Amino acid sequence: MKTGIIGLLLFSILGISQGQEAPGKVIHDIYKTALRNGKAYHWLDYLANEIGGRLAGSPQAAMAVDWSKQVLDTLGLDSVWLQPVIVPHWIRGQKEYAKIISPEYFGEREVNICALGLSIGTGENGITAPVVEVSDFKELQELGPAGIKGKIVFFNTPMNPEYIQTFHAYGSSVKYRWAGASEAAKYGAVGMILRSLSLAHDQYPHTGVMHYSEDSTIQKIPAAAISTLDADVLSSALKEDPGLLFHYKMNCEQLPDVLSYNVIGEIRGTEFPDKIIVVGGHLDAWDNGDGAHDDGAGCMQSIEVLSLFKTLNIQPRHTIRCVLFMNEENGARGGKEYAKVAKENDEYHLAAIESDAGGFTPRGFSVQDTMPVVEQVQAWGKWFQPYDLHRIEKGHGGVDISFLEEIGTTLIGLRPDSQRYFDYHHSPADTFDKVNLRELELGAAAMASMVYLIDVYGILK
Amino acid sequence: MKTGIIGLLLFSILGISQGQEAPGKVIHDIYKTALRNGKAYHWLDYLANEIGGRLAGSPQAAMAVDWSKQVLDTLGLDSVWLQPVIVPHWIRGQKEYAKIISPEYFGEREVNICALGLSIGTGENGITAPVVEVSDFKELQELGPAGIKGKIVFFNTPMNPEYIQTFHAYGSSVKYRWAGASEAAKYGAVGMILRSLSLAHDQYPHTGVMHYSEDSTIQKIPAAAISTLDADVLSSALKEDPGLLFHYKMNCEQLPDVLSYNVIGEIRGTEFPDKIIVVGGHLDAWDNGDGAHDDGAGCMQSIEVLSLFKTLNIQPRHTIRCVLFMNEENGARGGKEYAKVAKENDEYHLAAIESDAGGFTPRGFSVQDTMPVVEQVQAWGKWFQPYDLHRIEKGHGGVDISFLEEIGTTLIGLRPDSQRYFDYHHSPADTFDKVNLRELELGAAAMASMVYLIDVYGILK
Repeated sequence: MKTGIIGLLLFSILGISQGQEAPGKVIHDIYKTALRNGKAYHWLDYLANEIGGRLAGSPQAAMAVDWSKQVLDTLGLDSVWLQPVIVPHWIRGQKEYAKIISPEYFGEREVNICALGLSIGTGENGITAPVVEVSDFKELQELGPAGIKGKIVFFNTPMNPEYIQTFHAYGSSVKYRWAGASEAAKYGAVGMILRSLSLAHDQYPHTGVMHYSEDSTIQKIPAAAISTLDADVLSSALKEDPGLLFHYKMNCEQLPDVLSYNVIGEIRGTEFPDKIIVVGGHLDAWDNGDGAHDDGAGCMQSIEVLSLFKTLNIQPRHTIRCVLFMNEENGARGGKEYAKVAKENDEYHLAAIESDAGGFTPRGFSVQDTMPVVEQVQAWGKWFQPYDLHRIEKGHGGVDISFLEEIGTTLIGLRPDSQRYFDYHHSPADTFDKVNLRELELGAAAMASMVYLIDVYGILK
Repeated sequence: MKTGIIGLLLFSILGISQGQEAPGKVIHDIYKTALRNGKAYHWLDYLANEIGGRLAGSPQAAMAVDWSKQVLDTLGLDSVWLQPVIVPHWIRGQKEYAKIISPEYFGEREVNICALGLSIGTGENGITAPVVEVSDFKELQELGPAGIKGKIVFFNTPMNPEYIQTFHAYGSSVKYRWAGASEAAKYGAVGMILRSLSLAHDQYPHTGVMHYSEDSTIQKIPAAAISTLDADVLSSALKEDPGLLFHYKMNCEQLPDVLSYNVIGEIRGTEFPDKIIVVGGHLDAWDNGDGAHDDGAGCMQSIEVLSLFKTLNIQPRHTIRCVLFMNEENGARGGKEYAKVAKENDEYHLAAIESDAGGFTPRGFSVQDTMPVVEQVQAWGKWFQPYDLHRIEKGHGGVDISFLEEIGTTLIGLRPDSQRYFDYHHSPADTFDKVNLRELELGAAAMASMVYLIDVYGILK
């Protein structure tokens, strides 16, 4: 390691005189090529429109694996391979159905609903029960068994619109989706429904993974999300008729685990072939949309990074590896397996960059490492200013790459503009037509530029 | 004036001890209120979907004047009024029709076309003529009368995708739309068609204002835009069959000028009622879309600024005036009239802020004034950083407010993210569904915050 660090330091010192202009020129070429001849948008068109939603274990996920490997095969890389991963296989089954039943007030009204990922189904007859609305776990606790038993708990907590970065709003609300069913079941609830985690007011229910408590004394109950508009309707209806009934039926189920793959391609480094810089996204996507933003965008951008290096004939000193991770949405098995294999093979991962926040105009990067590393990356901010990226902050890298933390990898997340993300996220609204070619390509160019800077200057630690 | 400047300086000095926290708190409240309770999106829904495209002189423009005055009337302002403006009245007439005629190669093929604003029509029979494709004025000149006479000149110059800010690409291409017809007519062209000024590859033709030379010896010829996809089709077809014919028919015409209005509302300043800060956008919009981004967004944001001041009970020291300018698109008569009246009445305009670049996530402001003023505004950048605005630069304020320059007003343009703007601009794709509530409201909050800072610190010059 010592030689490596001295080498990097030396290069870095030399860089002061030699490298000052060079990164600017190469980054300029990267952006120019991405904006004029980038292919990410056209690839994404195929992935989203021809393959579509692709939950781990589904035939569509298998198609996405085959097709994306074929795309990597066209780039003239040094290696392209599939890394086996055993993934959970949860299926939604028939389209879910739900209605509010309030004979005295407004009869029956159908509701847009979808099962949360990994939920159990309701059985053939569905569930019909009174509803109790809560806005947080504290309220649930206060109601206790007397208020909850035999009822469907309705978590109606709007995402907080006041956060400028919408991920903060998501972060403060997602616990109800993740743990709400078991929390409600503790007090005898028979079902759980959630106001969709969306900042838009519309008819789309938003899915996402949930989790049952490991405590086997807590009943597993079916968990679903309803659209934000329907959540408002239900909440108003409950004010008129607290005794109304809610009926929902869903026959989602967990099938046995199946074999799937991470899809990997790499350009071998000329000087440090054993030191790897990863770029990646996750190939799986929820089944109710076509997974264009989440995370087809990140995958196609990651392939674009390698494509840009090849097109511009940039020969990296380190190995640049594109990894399309399987099963981020409901298990993160791809990320875990990738890190496990890396560890087993004693691979050195210098840095990993993930794009998993939508294909919107990039605004910056978040860096998950010690402050000296964060500051090193921040010092590169000057190279990004002409391209309108201004925010390099300490923060989360990404779910798939997070498992590389324990082998000391610097984790970096691409941070696109977040305003529209949760309008589409995990819903039927996440479709290709919501992606703008330039915004997508600017993200790919930003990632490629960051890879280039890491390749030139190393990570000093 | 001297007292005013000393007052401002004094306030500015006091501001060091008193004001340091205050702007942060007020700006926080502005953003919070806009994101949680803003009304701009709902107003825009009405303007775009119930009134729609509203070119100066049209019944829709008159409806927009009445309706937006009514909206201002609900805010409890100190004054709301209509300022008369005589505007041009150009009408498109029936939907335009065009086709490529190439009997030997692919028969006839219909083309998506629209007249450029202020163009003459083709007459009842339309125009049918061979086509000569050029990419710039130099090529036109080289072809000369021998290559041009009796033909339709086809300006096929794609906007340059390599610019990061799309307005730079627009700026370098718009001359063909503006002056292309007269330039072509100099050499005897009988018609002019333009590749739409759009960075997207789609079927929408994009209109926009054009201009005939004042030289009366140059024939006026009908000018139109075709979609970018059809421009590619036509260009390829010309390679196969240079003798193909192009036919287009449009019966647009210029009617006599009519009376319209700028719509104005204001909150009177508590300390300096005679010193005015303007916020504005333009109320007219091309007739082929619903003018949601251009410039319904800017108008509703400007009304929102006053609404936020009233909701938060911020009593400004200076008069804050919202101006919805009429006729920016094909004459800018509203902007000219507003400045003329301001000059006649010897009104002092401290600053004018225009939003006319779409309702996208705001990225910064451009300031049109001397460098000391630009630097003063740049120093306020710290207040905008928590809201992810990073770019305050010397630059263009806006078309409508530009006429205030001669009375010494500091002109400021809101600069939203520009990536998607030219996909929609002046086309049937500029519709309400392309606007995101949060992005729109963030722009309104940014404008309100800038108004607040100017009100607190003044403009030091």
